[in-house]
Amino acid sequence: MDAEILCVGTEILLGNIQNTNARFLSEQLSLIGVNVFRHTAVGDNPARLKSALGEALSRADLVITTGGLGPTCDDLTKEIVADLFGAPLKLHAPTLMSIAETFRQLGRELTENNKKQAYFPEGAHILQNRYGTAPGFALSKDGKTVLLLPGPPREMEPMFMEEAAPYLSRFSDGVIRSHDLHLFGIGESAAEAMLRDLMQSANPSLAPYAKTGEVLLRATAKAENSEKAESLLRPLVDEVRRRVGRLCYGVDCGSLECRVLELLLDRGMRVALAESCTGGLTAKRLTDLPGASRALECAAVTYSNDSKTRLLGVPKSVIDRYGAVSRQVACLMARGARRIGKAHLGVGITGIAGPDGGTPGKPVGLVHIALCDGRLTWHKELRLASPGRDRAYIRHISASHALDMLRRYLEKSEPV
Amino acid sequence: MDAEILCVGTEILLGNIQNTNARFLSEQLSLIGVNVFRHTAVGDNPARLKSALGEALSRADLVITTGGLGPTCDDLTKEIVADLFGAPLKLHAPTLMSIAETFRQLGRELTENNKKQAYFPEGAHILQNRYGTAPGFALSKDGKTVLLLPGPPREMEPMFMEEAAPYLSRFSDGVIRSHDLHLFGIGESAAEAMLRDLMQSANPSLAPYAKTGEVLLRATAKAENSEKAESLLRPLVDEVRRRVGRLCYGVDCGSLECRVLELLLDRGMRVALAESCTGGLTAKRLTDLPGASRALECAAVTYSNDSKTRLLGVPKSVIDRYGAVSRQVACLMARGARRIGKAHLGVGITGIAGPDGGTPGKPVGLVHIALCDGRLTWHKELRLASPGRDRAYIRHISASHALDMLRRYLEKSEPV
Repeated sequence: MDAEILCVGTEILLGNIQNTNARFLSEQLSLIGVNVFRHTAVGDNPARLKSALGEALSRADLVITTGGLGPTCDDLTKEIVADLFGAPLKLHAPTLMSIAETFRQLGRELTENNKKQAYFPEGAHILQNRYGTAPGFALSKDGKTVLLLPGPPREMEPMFMEEAAPYLSRFSDGVIRSHDLHLFGIGESAAEAMLRDLMQSANPSLAPYAKTGEVLLRATAKAENSEKAESLLRPLVDEVRRRVGRLCYGVDCGSLECRVLELLLDRGMRVALAESCTGGLTAKRLTDLPGASRALECAAVTYSNDSKTRLLGVPKSVIDRYGAVSRQVACLMARGARRIGKAHLGVGITGIAGPDGGTPGKPVGLVHIALCDGRLTWHKELRLASPGRDRAYIRHISASHALDMLRRYLEKSEPV
Repeated sequence: MDAEILCVGTEILLGNIQNTNARFLSEQLSLIGVNVFRHTAVGDNPARLKSALGEALSRADLVITTGGLGPTCDDLTKEIVADLFGAPLKLHAPTLMSIAETFRQLGRELTENNKKQAYFPEGAHILQNRYGTAPGFALSKDGKTVLLLPGPPREMEPMFMEEAAPYLSRFSDGVIRSHDLHLFGIGESAAEAMLRDLMQSANPSLAPYAKTGEVLLRATAKAENSEKAESLLRPLVDEVRRRVGRLCYGVDCGSLECRVLELLLDRGMRVALAESCTGGLTAKRLTDLPGASRALECAAVTYSNDSKTRLLGVPKSVIDRYGAVSRQVACLMARGARRIGKAHLGVGITGIAGPDGGTPGKPVGLVHIALCDGRLTWHKELRLASPGRDRAYIRHISASHALDMLRRYLEKSEPV
């Protein structure tokens, strides 16, 4: 089944709001096996809306619209659909009663405009709105289906999940299941080279998605029920894991920081961080997650050289001799963090995030990371500069490398 | 001038990425007086791309595309435009040299695919790409203009601002100028109530935009030249500032952290942070900005009670008596941070970000913030919980309040 998404609202064309509805619907439709071939957004203008809707229906089996279902005279999607489908608007008494009840509870008077929301084209399948007054509906004719949803995401998203997706499943001949394999430490093209033959397959399929500094591989299968879909997926996921080995930090695990927190809690270990160029970003990413307090002891953002000495006990002589961005300082930062935090593990990060501060010997993008467990200290040197990689990118990837060292250590006591 | 925006990329239709380009361009085009009548997104499919582009050009004077300019065989926007405009692709030697130079610096070999990026339709006006290898271009014929931009926002956005917007201004009959007034510490409806009469005006206009926990007021004027636009704006901006007073932390200043960094550098003062519930977010926001190293001495992310004592010297007895989330601990954290950082100013933040950890006496959303300058210590208690405000929101707003205390102190030595 081929679909298009048509979003209605002048505020989208003015750039006042981000059109998150198109993405949400695309993502959900791909999960139920509906292919989306086009997104369109038009303003609250009857002539332009009508022609966009007519064009979409001429190309696709299914057109899903969002917006233009409200009570005001700007809200015209329903009238235009009724017209295009030759289906006159009829009052739907249960909807009118439910709208009247809402207004009674709010102590507001029901106007003629609000009553408009209880009219639907003849033959429409009505979709309840639990979070607002405008119901949606589906209408089919001559093999074409149109599905009208409200514009506000907090109304549209639950209506789609609870009402529209089950309705659409009747057009689908099975279910779609997918698993995400998260890889860190390999680029998208290198991952493709390792897995090219697996990516040729159509069902189950394997597709790479770029995430900042990571590769997300999505394995997807379509089958008549979820057990069969899962049994198609299992060998593919296993084979990918076998090939990529430790580059895969998890399946369906959300993020590197989620995986690290899970491992820390699992091992009952606590970590202390010492961050220079990442300036608190690593701590921020870990503490984005509820429960981080049981695994992150503390972090010292030692941005100045003095503070590296004062807070972490890195000798001034070492900084003077090797520079603040050096293997030696990273290792002493990791040990200092572990000591001041009385933690099981210490991590140190020092580098040059740019755009300024680089020298020929120590260019922007040079980052040293160290991890120590009180027995050994491991070290990693990164050179992250390249066109299009800005300060934000260098900081993000540096924090990711630090988290990945922790992940590898926690998995096998061997971080690099 | 009427425009449409056409975004190219299968990842948009699959819902893998949010199409932020359409919104960015709509917002920017409205500022230079270009009306946008439609957004379209299609996949990397030559036939569907060609028909979408042809349709857009039949309706609009200007079509701006994003995506499909890369080196792979999927990237076809340029070829299709050349075909539709009957303008054969020609090699542009300076672009080839610049691409070759980039590859030389990276130590990578230049492939035939990469050379493809140096070809442009005859008569094209080339737009430089400072953040990637794919240049954009503009091409006009018979009163229709097409403008091709790359897909990645970090390449597209600067190319639009630096190269495309000045190019498009030749088609406009006037200039649009705007100033952003940044408010912190007031909600959108309260701001509207203070400024309602000013928001009635059409030229200059004043419109509010919500930002997480802040209000952005944009004053916009259209005139025949920028001097006249500015002279329309000046009285409006002055009047808004007069009414909102210290709630306005800056005009066109980017963000609260930008303003704080600017003030710190201006005063030659350094700050040290002690963060608990914000977990490094305040330090992260300040160090997002180049130059932060001259103003941020250090930050201690003291997530555990022990680390508050060990790193910051907050007596265990105070934590036991008042709890880690208390005025007393926030003030001692601020003083401890200032002391260990040997900084001019110390800031302490402690609170309950949730979703767990709240009690009836100390609910989720309770946050204490303190600022000390070695002479006095100021304190602020926040109650941030309300429906729809999650952990991320509470953390962000807590960090914003800490930054705003710094801002107010640095402006007038009086932070609350």
